[in-house]
Amino acid sequence: MSDSHPLLAELAAMLDPAGILTGQATEGYMIDGRRRYHGHNLAVIRPRSTEETAAVVKACARHKVSMVPQGGNTSLCGAATPDESGHSVVISMERMNRVLSVDEGNNTITAEAGAIIADLQAAALNAKRLFPADWGAKGSARVGGALGTNAGGLNVLRYGNMRELTLGLEVVLADGRVWNGLRGLRKDNTGYDLKQLFIASEGTLGIITRATFKLFPLPTAQSTALIPVADPQGAVNLLRGLQHELGDRVTSFELISRRCWELLAQYCPELPKPFAELPAWTVLAEVSDGGSDELLLDKFAEALVALSYADNALVAQSRSDAADFWALREAIPEAQKRKGVSIKQDIGVPTSAFPQFLTEAQAALRAGFGEADIIAFGHLGDGNLHYNVFLSDVSNGVYAHEARINDIVYEIVQRHSGTISAEHGIGQLKRNLLPHYRSDVEMSLMHQIKQTLDPDNLMNPGKLLAD
Amino acid sequence: MSDSHPLLAELAAMLDPAGILTGQATEGYMIDGRRRYHGHNLAVIRPRSTEETAAVVKACARHKVSMVPQGGNTSLCGAATPDESGHSVVISMERMNRVLSVDEGNNTITAEAGAIIADLQAAALNAKRLFPADWGAKGSARVGGALGTNAGGLNVLRYGNMRELTLGLEVVLADGRVWNGLRGLRKDNTGYDLKQLFIASEGTLGIITRATFKLFPLPTAQSTALIPVADPQGAVNLLRGLQHELGDRVTSFELISRRCWELLAQYCPELPKPFAELPAWTVLAEVSDGGSDELLLDKFAEALVALSYADNALVAQSRSDAADFWALREAIPEAQKRKGVSIKQDIGVPTSAFPQFLTEAQAALRAGFGEADIIAFGHLGDGNLHYNVFLSDVSNGVYAHEARINDIVYEIVQRHSGTISAEHGIGQLKRNLLPHYRSDVEMSLMHQIKQTLDPDNLMNPGKLLAD
Repeated sequence: MSDSHPLLAELAAMLDPAGILTGQATEGYMIDGRRRYHGHNLAVIRPRSTEETAAVVKACARHKVSMVPQGGNTSLCGAATPDESGHSVVISMERMNRVLSVDEGNNTITAEAGAIIADLQAAALNAKRLFPADWGAKGSARVGGALGTNAGGLNVLRYGNMRELTLGLEVVLADGRVWNGLRGLRKDNTGYDLKQLFIASEGTLGIITRATFKLFPLPTAQSTALIPVADPQGAVNLLRGLQHELGDRVTSFELISRRCWELLAQYCPELPKPFAELPAWTVLAEVSDGGSDELLLDKFAEALVALSYADNALVAQSRSDAADFWALREAIPEAQKRKGVSIKQDIGVPTSAFPQFLTEAQAALRAGFGEADIIAFGHLGDGNLHYNVFLSDVSNGVYAHEARINDIVYEIVQRHSGTISAEHGIGQLKRNLLPHYRSDVEMSLMHQIKQTLDPDNLMNPGKLLAD
Repeated sequence: MSDSHPLLAELAAMLDPAGILTGQATEGYMIDGRRRYHGHNLAVIRPRSTEETAAVVKACARHKVSMVPQGGNTSLCGAATPDESGHSVVISMERMNRVLSVDEGNNTITAEAGAIIADLQAAALNAKRLFPADWGAKGSARVGGALGTNAGGLNVLRYGNMRELTLGLEVVLADGRVWNGLRGLRKDNTGYDLKQLFIASEGTLGIITRATFKLFPLPTAQSTALIPVADPQGAVNLLRGLQHELGDRVTSFELISRRCWELLAQYCPELPKPFAELPAWTVLAEVSDGGSDELLLDKFAEALVALSYADNALVAQSRSDAADFWALREAIPEAQKRKGVSIKQDIGVPTSAFPQFLTEAQAALRAGFGEADIIAFGHLGDGNLHYNVFLSDVSNGVYAHEARINDIVYEIVQRHSGTISAEHGIGQLKRNLLPHYRSDVEMSLMHQIKQTLDPDNLMNPGKLLAD
């Protein structure tokens, strides 16, 4: 059926042969990274330029065919997977993958939407600059998707997430017009800041084609430590204490619960075991600066002494030690995967509310599910934890209990003025939950904006907002 | 006539007597800070709470009376002055002036829209934190206006402008509904980031009533220097060099042209004269860090040596020296005022393009106006200069030549992908210019958003967008 859609002939006439995939060639584009969603499509379109993207969007809009923008296909919420109707086209940006320029005097980098995050990091490094966006999927995640979800990651504490790195965007709108807001200005108060609308809109308002980002001075020194703390309040105190002592040298501040260490020992036994006796809670902190590692290490160690956290802290004595510490932190998702399927949450509350959130959420889950095995870890410095729950009784499938676990955890998140999605976005996964945790006024504003910019609901329908 | 408007009786019934001003009592609210615009009004309304603000907006909306939100009335573009019709009410936020809370664990501060910027600075300092928003009018500028114009100032290089400091907003929408987005989260990817729309919207989409901002570790050390450079390219090189050596310790980087020194000598003779021989261009750089002034001074001096800028640099040996340097920089606007009226521009280009912009703009102005006296200074580190022009022949009034001077300068700005308003906003002053320097697509997107959120054009009409 799909082959006969008149849109395809039109698209074939405007693109090179590799610009349209159909049938089996589209399979890899149809399943999300967590393998939770499986969609169907009319075709996968792979434009090579802004002009081609605009022409494709115009044709789709004329035929009222909906479009699903896709980057590296690393969404954790199914934001880039089409629905099962088979009536949409996926627009993959993978052929617009160039880093276009680095402006050293302006400290900026410009890239196409399909450029891979790690390639921007490398181009910046080559100019002795830092492009700070960094997370596990950096080798496959692409600029457009990272912007669409306003991706966070490991350096948000110091540098902000994708939104805060972005100076300018070029976007193909839902009707195929091109908005060129690709400016490299740090200050520009000429009206509504339109780029902000497209960041975190998950492709529902248009397709980002190019972006200009800030670059930063490259830190030459790093120092890293694993620091046991008695409880989450101790971690919050340590965070503010380190910031008081070291200012914005504190670039990462991750929290790891004891269960994470147990999980690593069991499922990733090949990894080193830094603690003979497992701490109830551990902070992985990294500080960065110019100058030498030795000088910074001294400063960091001094701060830990001043804050009375030096006794049990493991301070990396070399970059290789530091890499080992990070490997442990980064292996937690893999250890979870080896254990099985869990209910995953990506929640945020004000950092000051985390101690109470953790106490309340554990009590509530244990009350509802005595055997709930809670794996809590993540970016405490940003007020964001990954809060995952394994159940031992999964005879009806793991997801049978997902809704109830969500209810329990999100109610507590809501009470602390938090968020049900700190960094992963909404996608399909949380689209029906969102209206429960955002006010009617907020939801109606979002629908008004969607309606204004995409009146025919052709841009990634069914993502972020329920139809 | 105005006294008889039925809206006023309604408002009188819902507010305390001090909540409505009419007649002579409203005069101070009718003239902008630069005394360029003089408006008329039906009344000045002064709500004390979000609820009162919402009730006032609902009543105005019902009567189709337009509303002009006003904070500290320090706009440089007439954004807070009503038009001359006398048909609008000014809604002054001056009675909602409380700093509501400082959350030390979350590193945030929450304030009402009428709170004065200096009061937020003081409350942060009291908690050993930094609220970095800072500019000349900090003692009278209020939160709502600062957000409405996305104000910048002296610390943008390191901390960003108001937008980047903002975590959450509460807004009364044009129809009187209240959107409570007053969240203190550093990461929150739950859909369109609505607060971004209201920041820099100059009161045209709603009235901000409360805001939550980031706080930062308080720097304890500062070091300041006046550094002569041969030309603007030398200043850009110095900026990147200092950032390479000192990272984000570089918190201010201001450029001052020779004409500024001459102006200060002539019109502010009471101020010290740091240079016997006036440099063609001077950078005022400040670095900040934890630790002691002495340590930082050593580091700063070392960096200047490494970059070969130490020979002519005047490095402040004390806080009092530093205050003197800043007093010079901050007196430039006053010296200009004493000289007379100038055509003022608040332009931005990518920092790397400034050297060329300055060369081209001077040549073009001299070609058009041989006697053009150009006073250029400002936030080079942010890619933003104040670029002001005095003409000797002002027999037809200074502003007779404004349009032509704008044309000349803005054409060059545009060619370098810059902005006609880096930090002051659009207001009335540049409303008719904006469509010349932003694309039709961009203007139409702005109008679409305005139409969606304020269909009756009641919120600050005639500001930012021409009707």
